[in-house]
Amino acid sequence: MKIVSLGTHDVRFPTSRELDGSDAMNPDPDYSAAYVVLRADNGLEGHGFTFTIGRGNEVCRAAIDALAPFVLDQPVDDLGEFARRLTHDSQIRWLGPEKGVVHLAAAALINAAWDLAAKAAGKPVWRLLADMTPEQIVDLVDWRYLSDALTPAEAIDLLEAVRPGRDERIAYLETHGYPAYTTSPGWLGYSDDKLVRLAAEAVADGYRLIKLKVGDDLDDDIRRMRLARDTVGDGVRIAVDANQRWDVGQAVEWMTALAPYQPWWIEEPTSPDDILGHAAIRQRLRPAGIRVATGEHVQNRIVFKQLLQADAVDVVQIDACRVAGVNENVAILLLAAKFGRPVCPHAGGVGLCELVQHLSIFDFVAVSGSLGDRAIEYVDHLHEHFIDPVVIRDGAYRVPAAPGFSAEMRPETLQRFAYPDGPAWAL
Amino acid sequence: MKIVSLGTHDVRFPTSRELDGSDAMNPDPDYSAAYVVLRADNGLEGHGFTFTIGRGNEVCRAAIDALAPFVLDQPVDDLGEFARRLTHDSQIRWLGPEKGVVHLAAAALINAAWDLAAKAAGKPVWRLLADMTPEQIVDLVDWRYLSDALTPAEAIDLLEAVRPGRDERIAYLETHGYPAYTTSPGWLGYSDDKLVRLAAEAVADGYRLIKLKVGDDLDDDIRRMRLARDTVGDGVRIAVDANQRWDVGQAVEWMTALAPYQPWWIEEPTSPDDILGHAAIRQRLRPAGIRVATGEHVQNRIVFKQLLQADAVDVVQIDACRVAGVNENVAILLLAAKFGRPVCPHAGGVGLCELVQHLSIFDFVAVSGSLGDRAIEYVDHLHEHFIDPVVIRDGAYRVPAAPGFSAEMRPETLQRFAYPDGPAWAL
Repeated sequence: MKIVSLGTHDVRFPTSRELDGSDAMNPDPDYSAAYVVLRADNGLEGHGFTFTIGRGNEVCRAAIDALAPFVLDQPVDDLGEFARRLTHDSQIRWLGPEKGVVHLAAAALINAAWDLAAKAAGKPVWRLLADMTPEQIVDLVDWRYLSDALTPAEAIDLLEAVRPGRDERIAYLETHGYPAYTTSPGWLGYSDDKLVRLAAEAVADGYRLIKLKVGDDLDDDIRRMRLARDTVGDGVRIAVDANQRWDVGQAVEWMTALAPYQPWWIEEPTSPDDILGHAAIRQRLRPAGIRVATGEHVQNRIVFKQLLQADAVDVVQIDACRVAGVNENVAILLLAAKFGRPVCPHAGGVGLCELVQHLSIFDFVAVSGSLGDRAIEYVDHLHEHFIDPVVIRDGAYRVPAAPGFSAEMRPETLQRFAYPDGPAWAL
Repeated sequence: MKIVSLGTHDVRFPTSRELDGSDAMNPDPDYSAAYVVLRADNGLEGHGFTFTIGRGNEVCRAAIDALAPFVLDQPVDDLGEFARRLTHDSQIRWLGPEKGVVHLAAAALINAAWDLAAKAAGKPVWRLLADMTPEQIVDLVDWRYLSDALTPAEAIDLLEAVRPGRDERIAYLETHGYPAYTTSPGWLGYSDDKLVRLAAEAVADGYRLIKLKVGDDLDDDIRRMRLARDTVGDGVRIAVDANQRWDVGQAVEWMTALAPYQPWWIEEPTSPDDILGHAAIRQRLRPAGIRVATGEHVQNRIVFKQLLQADAVDVVQIDACRVAGVNENVAILLLAAKFGRPVCPHAGGVGLCELVQHLSIFDFVAVSGSLGDRAIEYVDHLHEHFIDPVVIRDGAYRVPAAPGFSAEMRPETLQRFAYPDGPAWAL
């Protein structure tokens, strides 16, 4: 199978008009996708995208165009080689390396290649992955810079060890689904009434973990956290998310003030680049029983490796589009398994739920073999724009069955929300 | 002073045709600049750029265009506020944060604003900086994420402590210049004869430190290092640079093999993101007397902070265009001074020598107050394209005197090397 054409779209949803997705660092996001369609010589299409929050989406699209020569007229059968080709060009590598815009662009292309490969195989991506041998899985990964924490041979041992019980785990998920948690009640722009109403609905809908945004005003956060705790009771976990708002000392002070309301984790307390900062915060919050989570802005496997080596996180939050797509996320799942930390993916935005469900299902079936303290974020936004949207029932993701990566947006969406000329923007 | 127009240029030099600049990770760079011209309402122009090695330069240009609304019709009098405005937009921040393409673009714009401000003040940038009060210098910095290592108050104390002797240090530099070291002999693509000839010339020209690229083939490196040591003798230092080629274990093995030839430092032994990896390499190479240097690809002040906190580097290598321009480099100079590490800037490429000389001179005059174990990289490439190029004499940078940041390329260069339509590319 060879790629014969590549098309890109700048798709943006005017979400800032409703304050959906508002948090302490991102007051007015317009959820967006730099979207790519690969066409293969057999007529199949692979769709993929990276997620942004508006301005600069066109820069990601320009970076996808810059990577196009490494994709066009090239084979897509060896997905490990395909992914490495997109991150190893020496000239483009200078712009990262392996971070920021060029990495977001690589993610879009690599995810599109997985959508294409899964469609060609007639399987959802999670099953294409789970059906691979340990050697094939290990070949997907770019092992550079990992050997001080995990070697390919160790990874094979780890994958072999978890193979027994694989079919039972698939059967379990097909019955019960994969646990979800919801951020829908907790956006900073929502009123107290809306927070309480949505928190109560979340519990009624079967969620055992909800999440609130924090970090703008301490008194507000204390009040909102108390309202949420009063609403959901002690049996439901409440995570909080500061979206990188604090320095180290401030994170510790703020979370200590919220400790009486039993926050389950503090997410992104500080810069995603600050490995040692996260380690310090985690150590200082441990006596209060508060865990540390991060990952949605962690740039690549090398930083995840260090967060684990430094004992800086309790929860690893992968993102489907921030690192170099499926392949780099496989590396991160293997690292998390090696260090025994649960992976609770970041989702929401547009299409992140659709993509990341495949990775968590693969993690349970073939990598960690565990659901303990694991849940995939769920936000009820923008799913109507996808041909094969996620299905949530009783607080759990239903296992996707259609071939592909659940990544394909409806053609009318690509047209209507095209930026800046689509009808949704022609105001 | 207000910005009334902004123009961008994609400038590329076909350096890969001669293998200048070839190393273990970058076999065929085409030195390039995403170049910006700001025009102020008083008629003055500020020129700035970020450096790339070819493909993807157009993506940096697109990112500069994405940042243009934060510059156009805006004041440029408060350079701290100007710089923060370019890195704090929540939507564009999502594409980093503060790293990769969007940060390179911010660097180009911030450096251009400094060129403009220095021209308006009738001073070279180094003197504009050195004439500021400690409070004014501290106001240039974005302090977010730094307080666990350095606070503004500590920085003011540090700057106050070094004020005595300021005029004597300026007088010293005006007589002796600022020490340089040269990488010209050591590119991987050069023959042994060329290496020996250029190393001998470097010593004759007054350099006390030269640098070789390593990391492609160990036997070749041992032979080249031996030739270089035989040529320069024991009194001249030889640094080596692996350009991120190794994992941790491999870095230690390779450098142990080169230890008999007394390498002064190993530069970029592994990923620039791997703080803990650098710390491990440094600890294991200490018995052999080999120091660790990195920085040209270190993405921002937060990673520099951790390299210092983790005792991971002996030498801090700032780059004028990788982080957010002068302002973020001031933060890094302050951090290095706090932790007592020398700053030896990365230069070469195109125009990096021109820019970074200002930062090292400012460091000596007003921040560290020391020249101990310090030298600015010098590579004799492409200086002819600048209106106010660096001047090197007896292995030292002469202090620049013209107003501005020495950043302005000749108009005929902008035209001739315009990519892809300039005459240099119309082959």
